[in-house]
Amino acid sequence: MSIAETTRTQFDVLVDGSVTAPKGYGASGVAANSKKSGAPDVALIVSGTPATCAALFTTNRVQAAPIQVCKEHLRSHGERMRAVIINSGNANAVTGQQGIENAQAMADLTASELGTEPGSVLVMSTGVIGVQLPMPDVSRGIRLGTQALKADGGHDAARAIMTTDTRPKELAVSFGGITVAGMCKGAGMIHPNMATMLAVVTTDARIERAALQTMLASAAQQSFNRISVDGDTSTNDTIVLLANGASGISPEPEAFQEALNHVCVGLAKKIVKDGEGATKFVSLSVSGATSEQDAQRVANTIATSMLVKTAIYGRDANWGRVLAAAGRSGVTLDPAKVGLRFGPLQLLRAGTPVPFSEEAALTYLSQDEIEIALDLGLGKASVTMWTCDLSHEYVSINAEYRT
Amino acid sequence: MSIAETTRTQFDVLVDGSVTAPKGYGASGVAANSKKSGAPDVALIVSGTPATCAALFTTNRVQAAPIQVCKEHLRSHGERMRAVIINSGNANAVTGQQGIENAQAMADLTASELGTEPGSVLVMSTGVIGVQLPMPDVSRGIRLGTQALKADGGHDAARAIMTTDTRPKELAVSFGGITVAGMCKGAGMIHPNMATMLAVVTTDARIERAALQTMLASAAQQSFNRISVDGDTSTNDTIVLLANGASGISPEPEAFQEALNHVCVGLAKKIVKDGEGATKFVSLSVSGATSEQDAQRVANTIATSMLVKTAIYGRDANWGRVLAAAGRSGVTLDPAKVGLRFGPLQLLRAGTPVPFSEEAALTYLSQDEIEIALDLGLGKASVTMWTCDLSHEYVSINAEYRT
Repeated sequence: MSIAETTRTQFDVLVDGSVTAPKGYGASGVAANSKKSGAPDVALIVSGTPATCAALFTTNRVQAAPIQVCKEHLRSHGERMRAVIINSGNANAVTGQQGIENAQAMADLTASELGTEPGSVLVMSTGVIGVQLPMPDVSRGIRLGTQALKADGGHDAARAIMTTDTRPKELAVSFGGITVAGMCKGAGMIHPNMATMLAVVTTDARIERAALQTMLASAAQQSFNRISVDGDTSTNDTIVLLANGASGISPEPEAFQEALNHVCVGLAKKIVKDGEGATKFVSLSVSGATSEQDAQRVANTIATSMLVKTAIYGRDANWGRVLAAAGRSGVTLDPAKVGLRFGPLQLLRAGTPVPFSEEAALTYLSQDEIEIALDLGLGKASVTMWTCDLSHEYVSINAEYRT
Repeated sequence: MSIAETTRTQFDVLVDGSVTAPKGYGASGVAANSKKSGAPDVALIVSGTPATCAALFTTNRVQAAPIQVCKEHLRSHGERMRAVIINSGNANAVTGQQGIENAQAMADLTASELGTEPGSVLVMSTGVIGVQLPMPDVSRGIRLGTQALKADGGHDAARAIMTTDTRPKELAVSFGGITVAGMCKGAGMIHPNMATMLAVVTTDARIERAALQTMLASAAQQSFNRISVDGDTSTNDTIVLLANGASGISPEPEAFQEALNHVCVGLAKKIVKDGEGATKFVSLSVSGATSEQDAQRVANTIATSMLVKTAIYGRDANWGRVLAAAGRSGVTLDPAKVGLRFGPLQLLRAGTPVPFSEEAALTYLSQDEIEIALDLGLGKASVTMWTCDLSHEYVSINAEYRT
């Protein structure tokens, strides 16, 4: 699905948009040498003026050190945030007290380089778990990053947060004199809530903090919480939304929400499309449920079934696996009422298999983007999730992640 | 772990044991042509005299047609069961009313060939979902199978129920004049409750039905419900225990339970060791939980994490993934109290990483059997599960299952 297809008339998608597209932001991405490849690994995003800030964090009970620092800084400086510092290659998770001190030191050094308060700096980390940060390298990265700050540095920052990502993920839209832009990373450990990912969304709109938080939660629910790559939820998931008001405009809440949703859904889909080893993008809809919660639970179970994901990779219309996954989701269903479609191919109607052409199925499943539609036939609630297949390449990437 | 290591002194493990090792049973395994390979695909197990019968079925809400037939027959003939007829290659699941009629026809034909009542025959199916049974082939298989019945036909039956299994799975023990024997199949769609599998356990002990059901449930809880290959629970899982009393002996319940546990745990481990594409057998213990339920939930989440399973395949001591999985299990845990070992290697103690030798870790993880021990440090409850790694071969097998 191209971005153009989902574009509403209310706003324009910016060509080549980045987090520095909104007014009043600078960014950089530099190599601090913590990656073997020598690729950039420290990203810095700075607002010229204090910004109101909304944020969401992983639901994993094991939360990385930077998340603990972020929560404290949001309490003290949520109305006047200035910067986000991010390192990739090391998650600073399960690192004990030393990890907390290192995350705090990242904020402290960034603040001192920028001449602002430590509490106004948020910290994110992504990469391997259980290893202490290489602080000399990270500190050098922060200094280099501050020197490299540019008004059009968003693309550099988006590259510097990549881990197993094969490409940067950015999106920006504008409407009525306001711009909303985002970048994210994430390719594995992707599952609600939230997808294993880091995301930074910037806007030059003027919005008060409570409203900003509500709108971010709503957008995440329809985007990052609707994607699954491998069913694993990370220790580091963080999404931050900065609103610095540099446009001088206070937008209509509905219009801003739509623009924010568009950016978040677009970024979420980019994550799935770049899922580790993914060869296919799958839109999975579950309808006819008695509640949205039930629909979500069934969709989650299907989206994380290794048997379903390998069948899609193999272009095999082995649809019984979809039914088997739905059946073990814990949701009450009546097999005699269930219907199933793979794109245009009706495979099951009212619980009875419909004969189909294996050739047509192979042709359909050979496409890059697949639609699976399960109708439980019980009620009116529905949900759509986005996921990908499970390939040999996924296994290769994750069997050798640290080497 | 060799079987000898877990053998108790109370009973002897029979060399080359099969479901026909107990007195009064016959069995066969024949090719009815429903497999492309021409391999045997119809198994028949018969007791010469009526047997009391216990059974457990999948918890999947989508239950295959033969399960529905079995439940009816257990109600009417649970005290006087005579035979189990099994076909492999087609699961007869999600096949609507036609599927129920076909499962019933399998019981009817088997009963008429054996000269017994249809209600005294149980039916099992395993294989692809959503395709109607090739009844002419299956019927021919039932007739051939009846002709081929032998007092030592257990091995033939164990071969005939294989699908992606690479070898038959059988185990028999004897004690005090009684024999307990079992066979099972299962290599994928393996996850509690129950492992995707079919199992038939036979004994010549004399045991009344209610006690038999209680003992089977207890044995399954410690065996088939403690294994996971891929997290998928099938539509067809069935375990049947027949006790025909042909030994004339009513055993001590404790002794029989131990023998039954030994057979079920042994069969369950054989399933994991033959897990689709498995290169490693993993004993996963979670201790220090506040309840067994919590321990089980954490163990389940780790055992089904694609990231954990691919790391083990890659012999990568990326232990942070174990912590991340535990953290998203939904169980309350205190990261500062958690400890983790891979075999002899202590990796985490009280939430703080312990330096370890990568070389020693690689050597340990290069073994065929791995132990992972997570201590939550909160309470006294613990659980052990058995699982396997996720390999390229798993993807190959399941991407091309139907072709």
